[in-house]
Amino acid sequence: MTEGSPNKKIKVHFEPDNVDIVVGQGENLLEAAIAAGAHINASCGGTGVCGTCKVLIREGGVESTRTEKLSEEEYEQGLRQACQTRVLTDLTVYVPVESRLESAVVSRESKGVGEALATGWRFNPPISKYFVELPPPTLEDNVSDLSRLIRGLKKQYKLSNMTVDFDVVKKLPQILRDSGWKVTVTTLVTAVEPRAGDRRRPRVINVEPGDTREKHYSLAFDIGTTTVCGQLLELNRGKVIAEGIEYNQQISHGQDVITRIAYSQKPGGLQKLQQAVLATINGIINQLLTQSQVNIEHIGHLVVAGNTTMLQILLGLDPKYIRLAPYTPAANLVPPVKASSLGIKVGEHVYLFAFPIVASYVGGDISSGIVGSGVHQRKKLTLYMDIGTNGEIVIGNSDWMVTASCSAGPAFEGGGIKHGMVAANGAIEEFEINPSNLEPTVGTIGGEKAKGICGSGLINIVAGLLEAGVIGQNGKFNTNLPTKRIRGGRDGYEYVLSRAPETQIGKDIVITEVDIDNFIRTKAAMYAGCQTLVKSVGVTCSDLEQVIIAGAFGSHIDMKKSITIGLFPDIPRDRFTFIGNGSLLGARLVSFSTDILDDARRVAKMMTNLELSENADFMNNYIAALFLPHTNANEFPSVYKILGKLPKSKLKQRITI
Amino acid sequence: MTEGSPNKKIKVHFEPDNVDIVVGQGENLLEAAIAAGAHINASCGGTGVCGTCKVLIREGGVESTRTEKLSEEEYEQGLRQACQTRVLTDLTVYVPVESRLESAVVSRESKGVGEALATGWRFNPPISKYFVELPPPTLEDNVSDLSRLIRGLKKQYKLSNMTVDFDVVKKLPQILRDSGWKVTVTTLVTAVEPRAGDRRRPRVINVEPGDTREKHYSLAFDIGTTTVCGQLLELNRGKVIAEGIEYNQQISHGQDVITRIAYSQKPGGLQKLQQAVLATINGIINQLLTQSQVNIEHIGHLVVAGNTTMLQILLGLDPKYIRLAPYTPAANLVPPVKASSLGIKVGEHVYLFAFPIVASYVGGDISSGIVGSGVHQRKKLTLYMDIGTNGEIVIGNSDWMVTASCSAGPAFEGGGIKHGMVAANGAIEEFEINPSNLEPTVGTIGGEKAKGICGSGLINIVAGLLEAGVIGQNGKFNTNLPTKRIRGGRDGYEYVLSRAPETQIGKDIVITEVDIDNFIRTKAAMYAGCQTLVKSVGVTCSDLEQVIIAGAFGSHIDMKKSITIGLFPDIPRDRFTFIGNGSLLGARLVSFSTDILDDARRVAKMMTNLELSENADFMNNYIAALFLPHTNANEFPSVYKILGKLPKSKLKQRITI
Repeated sequence: MTEGSPNKKIKVHFEPDNVDIVVGQGENLLEAAIAAGAHINASCGGTGVCGTCKVLIREGGVESTRTEKLSEEEYEQGLRQACQTRVLTDLTVYVPVESRLESAVVSRESKGVGEALATGWRFNPPISKYFVELPPPTLEDNVSDLSRLIRGLKKQYKLSNMTVDFDVVKKLPQILRDSGWKVTVTTLVTAVEPRAGDRRRPRVINVEPGDTREKHYSLAFDIGTTTVCGQLLELNRGKVIAEGIEYNQQISHGQDVITRIAYSQKPGGLQKLQQAVLATINGIINQLLTQSQVNIEHIGHLVVAGNTTMLQILLGLDPKYIRLAPYTPAANLVPPVKASSLGIKVGEHVYLFAFPIVASYVGGDISSGIVGSGVHQRKKLTLYMDIGTNGEIVIGNSDWMVTASCSAGPAFEGGGIKHGMVAANGAIEEFEINPSNLEPTVGTIGGEKAKGICGSGLINIVAGLLEAGVIGQNGKFNTNLPTKRIRGGRDGYEYVLSRAPETQIGKDIVITEVDIDNFIRTKAAMYAGCQTLVKSVGVTCSDLEQVIIAGAFGSHIDMKKSITIGLFPDIPRDRFTFIGNGSLLGARLVSFSTDILDDARRVAKMMTNLELSENADFMNNYIAALFLPHTNANEFPSVYKILGKLPKSKLKQRITI
Repeated sequence: MTEGSPNKKIKVHFEPDNVDIVVGQGENLLEAAIAAGAHINASCGGTGVCGTCKVLIREGGVESTRTEKLSEEEYEQGLRQACQTRVLTDLTVYVPVESRLESAVVSRESKGVGEALATGWRFNPPISKYFVELPPPTLEDNVSDLSRLIRGLKKQYKLSNMTVDFDVVKKLPQILRDSGWKVTVTTLVTAVEPRAGDRRRPRVINVEPGDTREKHYSLAFDIGTTTVCGQLLELNRGKVIAEGIEYNQQISHGQDVITRIAYSQKPGGLQKLQQAVLATINGIINQLLTQSQVNIEHIGHLVVAGNTTMLQILLGLDPKYIRLAPYTPAANLVPPVKASSLGIKVGEHVYLFAFPIVASYVGGDISSGIVGSGVHQRKKLTLYMDIGTNGEIVIGNSDWMVTASCSAGPAFEGGGIKHGMVAANGAIEEFEINPSNLEPTVGTIGGEKAKGICGSGLINIVAGLLEAGVIGQNGKFNTNLPTKRIRGGRDGYEYVLSRAPETQIGKDIVITEVDIDNFIRTKAAMYAGCQTLVKSVGVTCSDLEQVIIAGAFGSHIDMKKSITIGLFPDIPRDRFTFIGNGSLLGARLVSFSTDILDDARRVAKMMTNLELSENADFMNNYIAALFLPHTNANEFPSVYKILGKLPKSKLKQRITI
């Protein structure tokens, strides 16, 4: 295999999209196509097994491995699998119609389970960088500096109908002259209403001396009530190059959105909350820059998803009326705003895009998760559940969507749980119990000594304790069992997961009855929300063709155990997909694709919100769900079948005060 | 004649424009149509003599004087002259096609000589106010506050495709609730490129509680090198309600743009210059508000015209490269910018619109004057001269325009003239000389005691002295004359215009040989510019069908005397029109009409600039013009005819060192 020299620059032209890209010799042709924004299919994510990325090499030389997906005849015609092809000389590549299907699946990063769900989008970030070399002015051609720049962009890149930020005009004359009339321009496009005749108006937001196209980054954030997650994205190749997660510093002003809103109404309260989340965000940005060695000035965009209250507080919009009936947010589509004007420490040219809000309790985290997981693209009846401090649920497909929100509580993010913590290194995530001696085996994230319990760990622990008969279906400990792991503690009965010497904290890590109570309330609210929403649209859980679970509880959520404890409906396990932080996923995808940006706007508009807070059905469902898995055995037949096999003694209920 | 009660509100609906307006009973129907933005013709400006404003009263009662312009048959059909009609009851009025011609002339204010030149524009200011009453939210209808507002604007006013300023979102929730869901919204539209499919995107820039439509004002400014003029405009009726003029405080840093640019390159220089003009503007705004008793928060827009250097300094854009070959401005079309961000003391919602710049020495004052005087609307070959500190000239018509600039010097604004002053009260403007005893009669602006000499006064004085033989054609005094008015002074010979007791300054007001020298250089530069420009496009001065003169020298410029001294070409006097401050005129018209706003953008783009600074023809013409009226008698046949009739002795040249 020829190695090729990555320093040698090769120009690849893609038809019929008519887009060009310059890449290093030897680079993968599929990756080049994605980076160029050519509309190309690759269902398997580039591993060579699906054969959907066939392209015709019209001119130039490539090196390509022929797999069984390509017939001899096709090979003769010049067809190659883009993912199996390396670029050797300047190329003209034609992407045939069968390789350009809207159902393309492009997996863009190592962890990209999420990206595979949203399909058919092109890699065309809302911000673009253009390098232009301008002819210096002469007496015969002394148009203004800005006109010269715009003329150059038109001529070289066929850009038209641009608007320009005033700040760009201010620094333009000096930069043009200092750089010898060679500059890089950053443009931003915002979502457009899908209406005939509307053209995008690229906004020129920055100009830099020289060719800085290689330094092209953006930030994606999920602002959660409990945690804030951020990613630094490389926009030439569509990669996550650094990520960070921190507790939202607002936590010291209350654990859930209701207490935060109450705090915001105190004198100076809103400002303090805004400062707290800004400090969190700025801290994460610092981490990301340090990790990646990226210079802050090369960050060009910031996409933020989060629930309505979190977004409003970040933007300095009083959240007062979110809490008061009839629960109205300030805006669904927040106009673009300069990130630095809010206090976010990025360049002055960076605009913040806030994901569209659906309702007071169905925020930009949900519209983000929905477009991120492509629910809006499929006819399949899908249930989408985002389990955070607030639980938010969507049911629907490409034609319609109904949403609801239930205040589940922060148990899955470690809130209200004695040793609860976010899904970070040291969090107990795996849990097995030896049925004979009731001794546990725990596994932590990162394999470190245990520090606490994350959300996915909590599910595994409660399910394991239930299946082993250590707790009953009401969540209470069976205190008659022959094990020292169950003992009385300050908060009532508890089970010891890790003994002090095996922990990082030097204390026993336990799960208490109070923890389990909180956990049951949380899962009951989520499940009751699903039941109510499913019924409200006239279907049953068994009609659901797909269930997408989003949440920050850790990456190894066990669907079977989640059903065992009654969090998810009892339907075939293969209909479930776990996408991790769906809100962050959508924020990342919007940073990569203007198509998804337009989708976000459209999706938020098509959602109908069902208000659960005053819904009698929901309250009944909730009470019925305060049991493991549920008081109604018909709702969880497969679970009752397993529990039914346990020795009677282990299911015996202990009645405590 | 029925008086009608102005307190009684009458609704008038105009077809086919489908616009409504509410006016007081008894109000004039033409004025109502103009205020409503109905596209109506009125060539005579509403005096009843042209008959072009005929409308059909479809429903409702009016009172109308029938003139000979209306046949009995027409009157029977329900046709009325809008200008002769008073509104009595709610009306539906149809404007027939012949009354809707694009050539309509609408004179909109008392002083409106200028407005009559630009034709065919509708009264539709770039900012509009809309009062909306919104249904309060309910649990069934709890969309966001912003969505509710936009829905209301769509429903009530058919507005669509709006963008919204972030600041509006920030204050919206509280204002909506404090006002009982009744608010007034201000929108702004900017110029659009004339391209098919482009729709305007009204930008929501402000929201106020209650109905504030009656409080609808804007500001128009001309930023001159020497003086700054501002007007406060009422936008419901299109009237100037206050005006102010002040010296540009930058004067202490240099008299002309070149010295200002030099100053801007000193450390902190640009900032000092910007602060100086901001102080001037803020001072005038204060005056205007005091005069009019208008509250600053009701000013919604600011339109600024001025030469390139003045605009760039105001905007904080370094003017360095204006002065260095090849003379490039920073931008031709400056993006909209918040006025308060620059330091202008108006509400935070106010955007500044800067008139498009053509070249480094052909600024937004020229594009403003051209659209203000409608040069771009006519096939007539027109010469447009703006005589300020810099002289700027345009030749062309609706198809093409060529511009040039000649550094004339500030003589016409009082600069470089011993007793020179701006055209304000006390300025000597009229001047007659008794041929027998050479005693002067002077008249001042406002009839006050003399304070100094304004630009138009200077023309009258020099022409009068020349015609009386007090000075020769080289501008030197004839010291042999039997009058004590001519005497030696500190600056050489001088002529006493007003003796100390008759003045406000307690000193003799004189005109000196140095003044006359400066004056001749100024008029020579202007005239040479005209000659060069006229020749460059292959015509002669006699081909000019219209000459429009703009300048701040006072309102009573005498065309005949201006020709006598060789400032303007010697062509029939009736081809001349004087429009006063053309730059301010355009700024006012743009504030009144979005049509003119679009024109401004188009006109600036169609202008070709001829660089005179290195043009040999111009230098030759300039030297030949340093004489009264000109060294070449053939250029000024009518003047030489008059001068030829003077006694020989009076024309005798005195040679002085």
